[in-house]
Amino acid sequence: MEQKEVLVLEDLLGSNNKIAAEIRAKLTGRGILPINLMSSPGSGKTTLLERLSEHLHPKYKMAVIEGDIETERDAERIRAKGIPAWQITTGGACHLEAKMVGRLFPKIPPDLNFLFIENVGNLVCPASYDLGESIRCLLLSTPEGDDKPKKYPKAFTTADCLVITKSDLVPPLPFNIERAQQEAREMNPSLQHFVTSAVRDTGIDTLAAYLIAQLERIRHPNA
Amino acid sequence: MEQKEVLVLEDLLGSNNKIAAEIRAKLTGRGILPINLMSSPGSGKTTLLERLSEHLHPKYKMAVIEGDIETERDAERIRAKGIPAWQITTGGACHLEAKMVGRLFPKIPPDLNFLFIENVGNLVCPASYDLGESIRCLLLSTPEGDDKPKKYPKAFTTADCLVITKSDLVPPLPFNIERAQQEAREMNPSLQHFVTSAVRDTGIDTLAAYLIAQLERIRHPNA
Repeated sequence: MEQKEVLVLEDLLGSNNKIAAEIRAKLTGRGILPINLMSSPGSGKTTLLERLSEHLHPKYKMAVIEGDIETERDAERIRAKGIPAWQITTGGACHLEAKMVGRLFPKIPPDLNFLFIENVGNLVCPASYDLGESIRCLLLSTPEGDDKPKKYPKAFTTADCLVITKSDLVPPLPFNIERAQQEAREMNPSLQHFVTSAVRDTGIDTLAAYLIAQLERIRHPNA
Repeated sequence: MEQKEVLVLEDLLGSNNKIAAEIRAKLTGRGILPINLMSSPGSGKTTLLERLSEHLHPKYKMAVIEGDIETERDAERIRAKGIPAWQITTGGACHLEAKMVGRLFPKIPPDLNFLFIENVGNLVCPASYDLGESIRCLLLSTPEGDDKPKKYPKAFTTADCLVITKSDLVPPLPFNIERAQQEAREMNPSLQHFVTSAVRDTGIDTLAAYLIAQLERIRHPNA
């Protein structure tokens, strides 16, 4: 990378991190758990949110910020489930930034429990941008292959949990779940692991329970 | 995007385009067809190249430049097929640039027919960088979903051909091949369409024939 690029990037990241810290403090202070969902295009982020909503609703209130380069397609899918969703279209940019999330702040209802932020489908750039999340969830779908952790290191080393999606496609797909988890574990020992199939509704309950436990942690930090 | 970011990007793209034009002129002048392969992570770029090598070899000579953030995994797979492969690890950068390809120039054998450049797995950033290719091939795998063209417009509008991969997974996957192709066609009417399954070896022969026709075009430009 050129020297000029590094300087500009550091400057941008510095101001991004400041905004992100403010978002995190404000949301968690209100008892809202912000979750950043990252993955390649088509790994099943929106489908996972649709399924999660069935496990969380109506006991817990959730809302979704949808990040896409173009179209409102994902927000429309979430709204069809009766969940509030706001679309950010980046108009070409390959990731969300904290300031984009910050602009939606006035719309976020105070009685919310979970604020999911679905990042732009991209396994590279979003990993460099803190959006003010408390939990960073990385999705890896089985058709993508079990060789991805070391090929896309930053996404795997910065995540809090790894959600393997589309587990129903194995077999016939040659994805070794244990191998993918083991490689990710070597890179990031504190990673929490989940294996899910939205089609069969397996593993989503365990993921929902983990998120509820994280919510309880921010609501009762001294418990 | 901030003003500063735009200026830096334009400067970088300007110098990238100059290097790319030089690469394209030199390669095609030698009768070598450079092909830039772009897609999301895990769409099957390396597997497609493995299969293509079986259709092109030994009549045509091919070599591969592998772009990855980390690891030599893809280059090793290609070398195992007896095909020369050079790995570029970008060390974090989300796309290849023409200067990275340019640095490998001394290694490229003069009697080559096809130079495949497998970009970093990313459906966003690589679309902005000309690598000196004559043909830009975009892969879309069926598990990613048929809603991708309008969500990732630049990749689809700048490509010369769209290769739908993993067609053997449909059904049960709810991917409508005709819908994906139609949406891409509306955005880019001159796009050439291919539907492939590397597992079943279907559609690869048609894609190979298209690439051979493109090679003939640069070798006999006045024919």
